[in-house]
Amino acid sequence: MRELTFRQATRVDASAMLALLLSVSSEGDTLHFQGGIDAGFIDSQWLGAPGCFLAYDGDHLLGMYRYGANMPGRGAHIASATFLVAQQCRGQGLGRKLVTHCLAQAKAAGFRAMQFNQVVATNLAALSLYRSLGFEKVGKIPEAFAHPEHGYVSAYVMYLDLHRFDESFTAPARPV
Amino acid sequence: MRELTFRQATRVDASAMLALLLSVSSEGDTLHFQGGIDAGFIDSQWLGAPGCFLAYDGDHLLGMYRYGANMPGRGAHIASATFLVAQQCRGQGLGRKLVTHCLAQAKAAGFRAMQFNQVVATNLAALSLYRSLGFEKVGKIPEAFAHPEHGYVSAYVMYLDLHRFDESFTAPARPV
Repeated sequence: MRELTFRQATRVDASAMLALLLSVSSEGDTLHFQGGIDAGFIDSQWLGAPGCFLAYDGDHLLGMYRYGANMPGRGAHIASATFLVAQQCRGQGLGRKLVTHCLAQAKAAGFRAMQFNQVVATNLAALSLYRSLGFEKVGKIPEAFAHPEHGYVSAYVMYLDLHRFDESFTAPARPV
Repeated sequence: MRELTFRQATRVDASAMLALLLSVSSEGDTLHFQGGIDAGFIDSQWLGAPGCFLAYDGDHLLGMYRYGANMPGRGAHIASATFLVAQQCRGQGLGRKLVTHCLAQAKAAGFRAMQFNQVVATNLAALSLYRSLGFEKVGKIPEAFAHPEHGYVSAYVMYLDLHRFDESFTAPARPV
């Protein structure tokens, strides 16, 4: 990654987004997606999200996220989000940059907190990253995720009060 | 309640369902709905749910529920559900009948577990009912619900392994 730029997604990004989503959708412990990923899915679930941002290096889409209200109505003050990092960019800090960018956007948009509903217990990189940013485990769902290798594994609900979030906050990763 | 009958919802029930939903949507600690409740909402969110059942006493719609997968793809083996009981029928055991009926349906449909994502902490009747049916609190989300009287209140994530559910199971309500 040389010159990483973030910008809001538009329709011209749809094919690159679809390619990125398809390339990571077969992974074991990250996304819930299973089939049904097509142009319509990108339109409704990604471009249609209240917030959808992309990380480009030149013409190369390296990562993306979407965020929006986790619940309607009286629960709409808490956001949730989904993140994708291209396989060839793992372990280089892009995930942290995406999450930090997202938290800043959600805070600026008026959300009081960020909640991740299903962080799969085997996804140690995500758990470590979220904890380093101040997230706490507020729930543990038994057998929440049908892992292709490990069978049914649990998942955590993770939560961050955005009043506590400061973009400059970069505590070292703690063991999960 | 004299002769309670359960049946699957169809389009002819739409207006009665809308009236019931509107009548309870203003309550403080139950539903997340806040505005936007109309015929289209009934169509997409209720009649369009994988399972939607109604409890009638003659021509009077007294309660209803919907259920479906809580997550897509690799999380789709866990169900979630929403329940409504008409105000004039509270405290008469209808909620328990609706939930029990729903759990039996979801189990028969092949779901492994039932998860409620946001049981508001001030909704003691629901917490007591769910616990009496074997549900456990597996998470607690801080300030999850903007209560019209109490401000931001927490909510529980509750979970039941449906292998443990037996329709005849009617443990006495325990204190929450």
